[in-house]
Amino acid sequence: MQLKVIFLGTSSAVPTAKRGLTSIAVQRGGELLIFDAGEGMQRNFMRSGLGTNRRMKVFITHMHSDHVLGLLGFMQTLALNGRDMPLYIYGPEVLKEYIDVNTRLLNVNLTYDVYFTPVQEGVVVEEKEYTVKACKAEHSIHSYAYCIEEHDRPGTFYPDKAIALGVPKGRLWHRLQHGEDVLVDGRLVRSSDVTGPKRKGRRIGISGDTRANKRLEEFFNGCDLLVFDSTFSEDEKDRALETMHSTAREAAELASRANVKMLVLTHFSARYDDVGKLVKEASMLHSNVIAAEDMMVIDVPYPSSDQ
Amino acid sequence: MQLKVIFLGTSSAVPTAKRGLTSIAVQRGGELLIFDAGEGMQRNFMRSGLGTNRRMKVFITHMHSDHVLGLLGFMQTLALNGRDMPLYIYGPEVLKEYIDVNTRLLNVNLTYDVYFTPVQEGVVVEEKEYTVKACKAEHSIHSYAYCIEEHDRPGTFYPDKAIALGVPKGRLWHRLQHGEDVLVDGRLVRSSDVTGPKRKGRRIGISGDTRANKRLEEFFNGCDLLVFDSTFSEDEKDRALETMHSTAREAAELASRANVKMLVLTHFSARYDDVGKLVKEASMLHSNVIAAEDMMVIDVPYPSSDQ
Repeated sequence: MQLKVIFLGTSSAVPTAKRGLTSIAVQRGGELLIFDAGEGMQRNFMRSGLGTNRRMKVFITHMHSDHVLGLLGFMQTLALNGRDMPLYIYGPEVLKEYIDVNTRLLNVNLTYDVYFTPVQEGVVVEEKEYTVKACKAEHSIHSYAYCIEEHDRPGTFYPDKAIALGVPKGRLWHRLQHGEDVLVDGRLVRSSDVTGPKRKGRRIGISGDTRANKRLEEFFNGCDLLVFDSTFSEDEKDRALETMHSTAREAAELASRANVKMLVLTHFSARYDDVGKLVKEASMLHSNVIAAEDMMVIDVPYPSSDQ
Repeated sequence: MQLKVIFLGTSSAVPTAKRGLTSIAVQRGGELLIFDAGEGMQRNFMRSGLGTNRRMKVFITHMHSDHVLGLLGFMQTLALNGRDMPLYIYGPEVLKEYIDVNTRLLNVNLTYDVYFTPVQEGVVVEEKEYTVKACKAEHSIHSYAYCIEEHDRPGTFYPDKAIALGVPKGRLWHRLQHGEDVLVDGRLVRSSDVTGPKRKGRRIGISGDTRANKRLEEFFNGCDLLVFDSTFSEDEKDRALETMHSTAREAAELASRANVKMLVLTHFSARYDDVGKLVKEASMLHSNVIAAEDMMVIDVPYPSSDQ
């Protein structure tokens, strides 16, 4: 199952010539999970060829305009392009009012159903193959960090072992492969008797706007990929404290302590035309750091020993 | 006094790779009049170097999302860039609710005062040197067309005539130059005695979304420049009728009847990657037609015989 992250916008507060406002799409197989919808994100969404009519969930971290203003236009454009599948939206409770009021005031005509779920800490989405969890972040207004966690997959199936235990090929094999224990002529055969150890699913973390802190370090522990607020460089740390954002170095320190495999810096202040300095600062504390760019795509593979 | 039109967005309904959503800035000397604020217009606004802290008025034609969604982000960005001069906004009455609700829901912090005036037909703005008028357009929802009309300027001043009439140089000349009649040693000297005929001001029309009709033909009569809804080509006329837009040909027919000097087509459907066809259709009926492009700037000079 392919899992990739597409950056639709990577600037904070104001767009720049090179960077649109924050939006991050996670494509998992045929489904899209979109985190934040800054103004103009629909344009990079279309440019990315991500498609109109597929399973789609939108998660909003917090109600600052640079993370939300693109939502209505995106919804309207999906409708104009003929979407008829429902759209699931998750975010702070007040987001519902935002959608309802603006749909009315701006005469937005939708061709599909919208289901809104207010976010609280803990499990936000529970699907067959993955879970999305939320954790309170530390920002100037109520904000959530999100984590996508794929469920562990069953281990490698060993046909020889199944044959040796007298399990006939077919439906029973299928059940054993998917982790079920089965009865064969009254005898219990456990899935674990005929399969290797479970293979871990992947985890992707999205911080939204926040200070780096201990809670988030625990929340993002072991992520394969973490996208973290890196609004400022170290010499603007006072600004980071004042505006409740993080420096690239702070993001790296958290990622390192949380044993995150890959750290992606994003949400850069418009003052940085070149973010090389921020990557350098973060790289002092974490060995696998890159800076997001608009339209950048990152593939998140299964660990190589564990396909 | 320089007068120019800067196109910040020229697409209808959805943005394309080349075109953002509708917004048109008219720069008159040091002042900016902005018509509509489609999503993302702040980006081209910044790219145009139009500045943060200058006299500025925003006019909204109607409450469709593709004409309004960029307003809040634009307002927030002006604040982040330190604007402290008041911003004047004109539009349908419900625009006030839109601004108020979203300022609250999205925690928009402004550093300047906002004055909203609901638009009705007739004079919307009366300034010393120009007037902005509104006329009801013909669209699927309540929509206004706007016209900027510079006041006529006093005619050329002839010093020889003033001297011959015994008017001493100085304050009296100044008053005569600006159209006032004066008393010189008890004798009345009329401004018209020492100046040429009044010089006409310029007129710029902005249609917003509308069908072309007789009312607008009268409203835009004699415009130096008219920016008119040209969403469709002639072979999509059914669509134009259905969605209450105009074809390029219809725009040109109106411009021709209204003795408009220059017609600018805009608000193109995303189906036209190349709008050459629309220009061709319009050019059959009007001799001075161009298609707007994002970031295009058009200078509107005084008539050449009348500097």
